[in-house]
Amino acid sequence: MTVYLVGAGPGDPELITLKGINALKKADTIIYDNLANEELLKYGFNAKKIYVGKKAGKHYKRQEEINEILVEEGKNNSNIVRLKGGDPFVFGRGGEEILALMNNNISFEVIPGITSAIGIPTSLGLPVSHRSLSTSFTIITGHEDPKKKFKQVNWDYTADTLIVLMGVGNIKENMKELMKYRDANTPVCVIENGTLPNEKIIFETISNVADKEIDTPSILIVGEVVNIYRNIKK
Amino acid sequence: MTVYLVGAGPGDPELITLKGINALKKADTIIYDNLANEELLKYGFNAKKIYVGKKAGKHYKRQEEINEILVEEGKNNSNIVRLKGGDPFVFGRGGEEILALMNNNISFEVIPGITSAIGIPTSLGLPVSHRSLSTSFTIITGHEDPKKKFKQVNWDYTADTLIVLMGVGNIKENMKELMKYRDANTPVCVIENGTLPNEKIIFETISNVADKEIDTPSILIVGEVVNIYRNIKK
Repeated sequence: MTVYLVGAGPGDPELITLKGINALKKADTIIYDNLANEELLKYGFNAKKIYVGKKAGKHYKRQEEINEILVEEGKNNSNIVRLKGGDPFVFGRGGEEILALMNNNISFEVIPGITSAIGIPTSLGLPVSHRSLSTSFTIITGHEDPKKKFKQVNWDYTADTLIVLMGVGNIKENMKELMKYRDANTPVCVIENGTLPNEKIIFETISNVADKEIDTPSILIVGEVVNIYRNIKK
Repeated sequence: MTVYLVGAGPGDPELITLKGINALKKADTIIYDNLANEELLKYGFNAKKIYVGKKAGKHYKRQEEINEILVEEGKNNSNIVRLKGGDPFVFGRGGEEILALMNNNISFEVIPGITSAIGIPTSLGLPVSHRSLSTSFTIITGHEDPKKKFKQVNWDYTADTLIVLMGVGNIKENMKELMKYRDANTPVCVIENGTLPNEKIIFETISNVADKEIDTPSILIVGEVVNIYRNIKK
């Protein structure tokens, strides 16, 4: 009776780890959503599959419902995989899932995955850290819990490079905030559907990126390292 | 003639990606150092292996020498893998390597790996982001290029969680700097040899972690999320 939280990586099904594949192969149950590549389900072909993601015209399953499913499956099966996009703990609410399991005395193990925040720029040849240019980078969510009384994301991050996940929905407000702290001409690279066949890359600046039409899922990279990548592409 | 920069992941040889394994399998030459797990060389058993890491009693190969080897191999072979610890672009100087290849018209591809900065805490069950507690995290190097005239790492990072790589050598100075900006009682988790059989975990605070004996390689996690993990371990 172990629930494995497995990071599926940023999109490309070859970017899951060997350890993740091995967990899928021995799974009795796989609990997944639309943030992980469905192609990965092939590794657990005999497993029961439970979809807990977005459905057309319907809400996402609430996190509490997902936690309940995890606990229920954890009580009744030997090897449960909760397959999560990217890394389970990079804005994936994996922390809440393990707390729910812990509170119900269900053993768990977490298998890291490549977070989109780093894996997507790296796969392009865009270095998030680079000698002299970027000795620090900050990863944030651009979609803060709307119920929170006090906003924690203040956009005054001092790191050289800023990487924004889930920042497209609020992009106008986000970039307006960011302009308080960074030069409006700071380069921004937007990557839609990173590491997937329909990947799309947009170069802009903080001041004008919000005018572009951007699909989700997308990540934003803000900082001078974007120019290294632009020079490579030339 | 392609040089593949491949991220080996944080230590555990099962934490490399399928894509990384496939690149190793078809390699003619593998260029590696002590930051990647040597066990991974088994995937390229027919390949020529070139070690460019630390040697007992000797210096590291200078980055310029490594770049020259990459260029030389890239000119003379079809599939070269440059195997790097963690992710090639997270303080791995991968950016400098691809620029050297580009300047010599050698094609390259970068295969991301799990950075120790995220993969190690995730594998423990220590969430670097967590609802309400951590909506941002910053990854920095605690070992800045000593030749730099102006220090870029100022320790005034505003993100909720701070992750320090290569911060043990300068830990006294680093923690002294950090205390200017964060409460001295902020929890710190040090993980030595993360994801490996000899993994060791130390819990301290900013004010007293520098008094401990810490081996390398280690990473430091600073912030309230450390307490979530401490509660799990109880």
